[in-house]
Amino acid sequence: MHCQVILPEWLDSFVEEWPDPLETVEQRMRLAVELSAENVRHGTGGPFGAIVVEDQSNHLVGVGVNLVTTLELSIAHAEIVALSLAQSAISNWNLGAKVDVQLVTSCEPCAMCFGAVPWSGVTGLVWGARKEDAETAGFDEGDKPGNWVQTLENRGIQTQRDILREEAAAVLARYARKEGAIYHPGKNDL
Amino acid sequence: MHCQVILPEWLDSFVEEWPDPLETVEQRMRLAVELSAENVRHGTGGPFGAIVVEDQSNHLVGVGVNLVTTLELSIAHAEIVALSLAQSAISNWNLGAKVDVQLVTSCEPCAMCFGAVPWSGVTGLVWGARKEDAETAGFDEGDKPGNWVQTLENRGIQTQRDILREEAAAVLARYARKEGAIYHPGKNDL
Repeated sequence: MHCQVILPEWLDSFVEEWPDPLETVEQRMRLAVELSAENVRHGTGGPFGAIVVEDQSNHLVGVGVNLVTTLELSIAHAEIVALSLAQSAISNWNLGAKVDVQLVTSCEPCAMCFGAVPWSGVTGLVWGARKEDAETAGFDEGDKPGNWVQTLENRGIQTQRDILREEAAAVLARYARKEGAIYHPGKNDL
Repeated sequence: MHCQVILPEWLDSFVEEWPDPLETVEQRMRLAVELSAENVRHGTGGPFGAIVVEDQSNHLVGVGVNLVTTLELSIAHAEIVALSLAQSAISNWNLGAKVDVQLVTSCEPCAMCFGAVPWSGVTGLVWGARKEDAETAGFDEGDKPGNWVQTLENRGIQTQRDILREEAAAVLARYARKEGAIYHPGKNDL
């Protein structure tokens, strides 16, 4: 028994050719949002992208896109994919063990990804689209505590929201207009 | 870039030789609790075990133990491992697509695993030890909504708690007495 998280073929070369530096939070978010759009274009999953970046060096440690339908794994949200690949790359489940590390995601994390953030060791969380943008597009964000942002801050995880929100939300809206698969039980089951 | 979830070598034969049927919720929980204890005995991770069972046929679809330190993946909680391996086994991210399926876990799910439950398609969640048992042993359960059980029930996921609670909590307490690794950032970092 085993399972594997592998990125789609297009992704490696896409990231290698990505010209922008990753110095500012907007530059980081632009990559996450473009990953979400590319994932839809390539038909490899839902409209969500995420990256893991070392805060001082701007080094890209991990990337992820939503691969739920591609991998047949319900955990394969962009954030979980990016965190897990980053941990595998540095062989350490604690991404913040030595340096400050940011998780930058095109959309506010769902209940599962929110719960995964503190365990990953990241020291910062940045998101673009809001929960309501995802819900308008038909996605279910799950049930987070009302004070979820505060709980992260209390754990020393710095949060930044609404970064390139319009661009990120536009990818979700485009996906919804094309009637892309909404992959969670109870709605449009695949 | 890829990462893999593989079970430790001892586990396959342990499960194959498991004599009990899995007809009752107690029989199912006994396997989950024994997996949590065996995982500590073998030094392959934390004191948590989980199984995924088809409700009518009693067929075991997936098993998991905590493999955070072994795999260097912070998502590798017993529940996530069991759900992901079950989904890989049936090649479907939606475990409840055709039959009712139960996730039986030795301990109340943390915030991440709680968030993962609805996305997995399981139709039932059963746990043994309570959050306070895990916290007494030094584990951090994360931040769930106060009404988390109700949110699952509202989604049509049946919940059962306190099944073999004493046995499950005893495994946690034994682990704590031996000063096992508590693997989340901010406490006893590895």
